[in-house]
Amino acid sequence: MVSPACTPHLGSSPRRTMNLKFSLLGPCGSGYPPSRWPLCSVAILLYLAHKYKVPDHWYPQDLQARARVDEYLAWQHTTLRRSCLRTLWHKVMFPVFLGEQIRPEMLAATLADLDVNVQVLEDQFLQDKDFLVGPHISLADVVAITELMHPVGGGCPVFEGRPRLAAWYRRVEAAVGKDLFLEAHEVILKVRDCPPADPVIKQKLMPRVLTMIQ
Amino acid sequence: MVSPACTPHLGSSPRRTMNLKFSLLGPCGSGYPPSRWPLCSVAILLYLAHKYKVPDHWYPQDLQARARVDEYLAWQHTTLRRSCLRTLWHKVMFPVFLGEQIRPEMLAATLADLDVNVQVLEDQFLQDKDFLVGPHISLADVVAITELMHPVGGGCPVFEGRPRLAAWYRRVEAAVGKDLFLEAHEVILKVRDCPPADPVIKQKLMPRVLTMIQ
Repeated sequence: MVSPACTPHLGSSPRRTMNLKFSLLGPCGSGYPPSRWPLCSVAILLYLAHKYKVPDHWYPQDLQARARVDEYLAWQHTTLRRSCLRTLWHKVMFPVFLGEQIRPEMLAATLADLDVNVQVLEDQFLQDKDFLVGPHISLADVVAITELMHPVGGGCPVFEGRPRLAAWYRRVEAAVGKDLFLEAHEVILKVRDCPPADPVIKQKLMPRVLTMIQ
Repeated sequence: MVSPACTPHLGSSPRRTMNLKFSLLGPCGSGYPPSRWPLCSVAILLYLAHKYKVPDHWYPQDLQARARVDEYLAWQHTTLRRSCLRTLWHKVMFPVFLGEQIRPEMLAATLADLDVNVQVLEDQFLQDKDFLVGPHISLADVVAITELMHPVGGGCPVFEGRPRLAAWYRRVEAAVGKDLFLEAHEVILKVRDCPPADPVIKQKLMPRVLTMIQ
């Protein structure tokens, strides 16, 4: 097990500082379509891992292990990440925050897609290992758990009936440190309690939201 | 300008060998849903760049320059890559190869999405630089040009009316080497001449195709 001390320092203040610094590096700065913003998170994590020379297991020097991390990071964009994001929006953000109902067949398709992708995560990536790419936690685990907390926040029991994935969840939480893990997911775990959006904000948000959940 | 000698060795035989080797590394091997396959290409390129110690400009040691490459590689999955792939399928593969007509409004939406993403590529990533992340070619340029050749193969003049992007195209072609560039895109540039699919193959392909172009 990896000690919490090995976790990259991602407390709120340094995180904000790094995001600001990173925004100076490329198109994520001003004038960049806000709908593209979250896609920079992988690049930010890689930058932080190199910059602060985090312990090797986060992004291994060993080429085959590193390739496994890169493979997960490339795979998740259009699969797990997409279905986790859509699930949160279809289950909570549209009906609760924006007051818009989702067609039952669209929600069913989103949940079916989520189920397929979570199963690929468990069967093809996790398999019988402790973490996604081997015996130690890596950036792949951090990115994966962060995505899965979206449907969890939306009330989907993604770990139920999946004992291997549930055990992996507990290992990731312990490796990151329970307090930091809860702090990082505090907002997403309370998302169902958010008040309805102000109509002006809703009008501004809708085009971006529709692009984001395509 | 970068000499063709700096290009990573991606001739057909070594490429096949590396794909085979890479398939042993993770879930891209047997049992992995074939619809996920192409998403491993970024991980394969990174592996090759490290393994064969290619010249620095392909994937720079400088952290800010590397972050720009990573940023592009993360961005393109759900944006440029998605719209380039959909354009090829909606313009050519569905009507010509599979004999299936696409609704005009769906094709129009796909082309509009492509236009937005190509414009982001030019305005936000390329800007006034010679290549996407600076004065030298990198993996970002190779991945971007490969995606853009999909709509080009489908008959979409993506470089017309975009002189900066057209000049970048010529620089990438020269840096890779014209012969290798043409060899790499030979299949995609002749895709409109492909014969209709055998009905049995079509039946087998359809579920995967529908997943891929979601």
